[in-house]
Amino acid sequence: MTRKIIAFLFAVALTGAACFSQTTQTAVLEDFKPSTLNQPGQEYPQVNSQGYARFRIKAPQADSVKVSLGLGGRGGTKLTKGADGFWTGTTEGPMDEGFHYYHLTIDGGTFNDPGALNFYGSVRWESGIEIPAHDQDFYALKDVPHGNVQQILFPSKSTNTSRRAFVYTPPGYEKDKSKKYPVLYLQHGWGEDETAWSNQGHANLIMDNLIAEGKSKPFLIVMTYGMTNEVKWGRIKEFKIEPFQTVLVDELIPYVDANFRTLADRSNRAMAGLSMGGMETRTITVNKPDVFGYYSLLSGGVYSPDELKDKSKAKLIFLSCGSKEKPDGVRNAVSALKEAGYNAVSYVSENTAHEFLTWRRSLHELAPLLFR
Amino acid sequence: MTRKIIAFLFAVALTGAACFSQTTQTAVLEDFKPSTLNQPGQEYPQVNSQGYARFRIKAPQADSVKVSLGLGGRGGTKLTKGADGFWTGTTEGPMDEGFHYYHLTIDGGTFNDPGALNFYGSVRWESGIEIPAHDQDFYALKDVPHGNVQQILFPSKSTNTSRRAFVYTPPGYEKDKSKKYPVLYLQHGWGEDETAWSNQGHANLIMDNLIAEGKSKPFLIVMTYGMTNEVKWGRIKEFKIEPFQTVLVDELIPYVDANFRTLADRSNRAMAGLSMGGMETRTITVNKPDVFGYYSLLSGGVYSPDELKDKSKAKLIFLSCGSKEKPDGVRNAVSALKEAGYNAVSYVSENTAHEFLTWRRSLHELAPLLFR
Repeated sequence: MTRKIIAFLFAVALTGAACFSQTTQTAVLEDFKPSTLNQPGQEYPQVNSQGYARFRIKAPQADSVKVSLGLGGRGGTKLTKGADGFWTGTTEGPMDEGFHYYHLTIDGGTFNDPGALNFYGSVRWESGIEIPAHDQDFYALKDVPHGNVQQILFPSKSTNTSRRAFVYTPPGYEKDKSKKYPVLYLQHGWGEDETAWSNQGHANLIMDNLIAEGKSKPFLIVMTYGMTNEVKWGRIKEFKIEPFQTVLVDELIPYVDANFRTLADRSNRAMAGLSMGGMETRTITVNKPDVFGYYSLLSGGVYSPDELKDKSKAKLIFLSCGSKEKPDGVRNAVSALKEAGYNAVSYVSENTAHEFLTWRRSLHELAPLLFR
Repeated sequence: MTRKIIAFLFAVALTGAACFSQTTQTAVLEDFKPSTLNQPGQEYPQVNSQGYARFRIKAPQADSVKVSLGLGGRGGTKLTKGADGFWTGTTEGPMDEGFHYYHLTIDGGTFNDPGALNFYGSVRWESGIEIPAHDQDFYALKDVPHGNVQQILFPSKSTNTSRRAFVYTPPGYEKDKSKKYPVLYLQHGWGEDETAWSNQGHANLIMDNLIAEGKSKPFLIVMTYGMTNEVKWGRIKEFKIEPFQTVLVDELIPYVDANFRTLADRSNRAMAGLSMGGMETRTITVNKPDVFGYYSLLSGGVYSPDELKDKSKAKLIFLSCGSKEKPDGVRNAVSALKEAGYNAVSYVSENTAHEFLTWRRSLHELAPLLFR
């Protein structure tokens, strides 16, 4: 508490000083704390209450250490070497709230920050940092009943192997052995994999909290790999849907329906995906109107009324994105769908871009609307 | 195939040349392949059929890049910079079969190899490399029915949070809703966490394969965090068992028994642990003779007949280690236990040290003996 007051006074002093400087830079509050995504016991990277991030990397003989932050991360941050052999630096400005991928460039090579946990994105395990969001409560780990996230290995003839998926089973699933549940198939984005929605997205905690509040029906969520490695970023239009569609529709869904207590029909099956996973969702739901009853694209494009062949099949179309993306595209598409008689809903996440806070919030808005 | 022949001829040529050299170094066979633990699409690190490892790291402006390998990894490997800005190097000799942790030292800082997957060990996420073992079939991913690995979050009053554990449920668990199962509580070693037995140990695949062959009863395996961060390596004797014992015995076991279909008595409950997890197992099984009926220490010390208070309680004592550890200690302890009337079994893993192949093999030997 005292430390906070001192930090505040120090900040006031800094702000005062800034008035006399030629630029009108905001003072950086010295209330930095370790990021919640640090490896156990690691003090750095740190984040302050304004959303600035500070990095500290040991590399005494290095010539240059740079931090590359993704979208919303203000580009790069060059670190400066201190006498102790540690390179430190603070972002030039506050970052967007939520999760950001990043990596280090050390003497021309790409490495991860040894202080941070790793998250699969950009077709590699990247470092991750979390800027606490003002609404972070909805994905926080709370003292509520928790569902499980089950790793399954399902047989896939088309790819000649056992493939991995994760299945979220809601609280109570283990106990009430007669109850059957609807299922949401939820896809990651380009360069990510089946771990993304749990690790970066906290999908399980979002559902645990919604269910505890009585705001969502309990349902299963199935997350598997969208085979995105087969396509390079920038050549995403060349992506062929068939191999993944076969795995999902002909192999995974029958396996889940045979091995979990599911309601195995269209009106109890939803598909959603973020970014490239939205592209996959759109194509597969249109190709297979008898398989899914609820469609959702999160920062992943829109549906036009023309492409939906049979109006009676789509019970809900949910489109979302961040306000820093193209929210008008989403809003206009939903207007057009509504005019054409569809049950369509749009959601725009305020002050976020093409990043995971947009998708955490989107799932939080989507879940209560499913299977009603 | 042709490439293999060329590699073989090249190796023969190299061996011939070596005859004239002053040392009698074995030729390094040029049949290197990407390690099975590489990140998707990464060509390096590589491993050859003799167990040599080769590394390749991009860091064009670095002054020095070194690979630090753990036990069985022949210490360090210094890499040499090529004109293309990549640092490459091969281990001085073949490594032990199985899994090894490692990391890079780049200009005096500790980083992971961007080509390799990360595994939690040494209280950090380390790079991992796999030297294919001659008996790797027993932990291979095969076309057999697979159990699930469920992440659970269980309430822990003593630590005032929800704690994570993983629960392996064997094939068929989801289908036969009336069947109840015994449970093995399985602990990781110092500096590792609850992910180790699945990620490094392939415990789930070992069980899937044993069950498919009819060699093991199906049972649950529960893996949680042994709170090892509280103790520094070298000060391990200061470790206090009470906090972990409370989490395990008073919080986790009741949660598992309430939320899974378990046979909830001593004769259907085993505890095993590797290294420091063995120390925990030994202490807790002796402290709580009514909780566990099967005890197993994997490279984790031995029991003396004196310390086991009630002979009738231990249905099986299984002690193991690698042949490069202290196998006589394990064998002698088992002889003494047998003489004292205990059902004790020893197992020594050939040509392995204090590493995960020892523990994969130990689990493979232990599982068929449990709950008989």
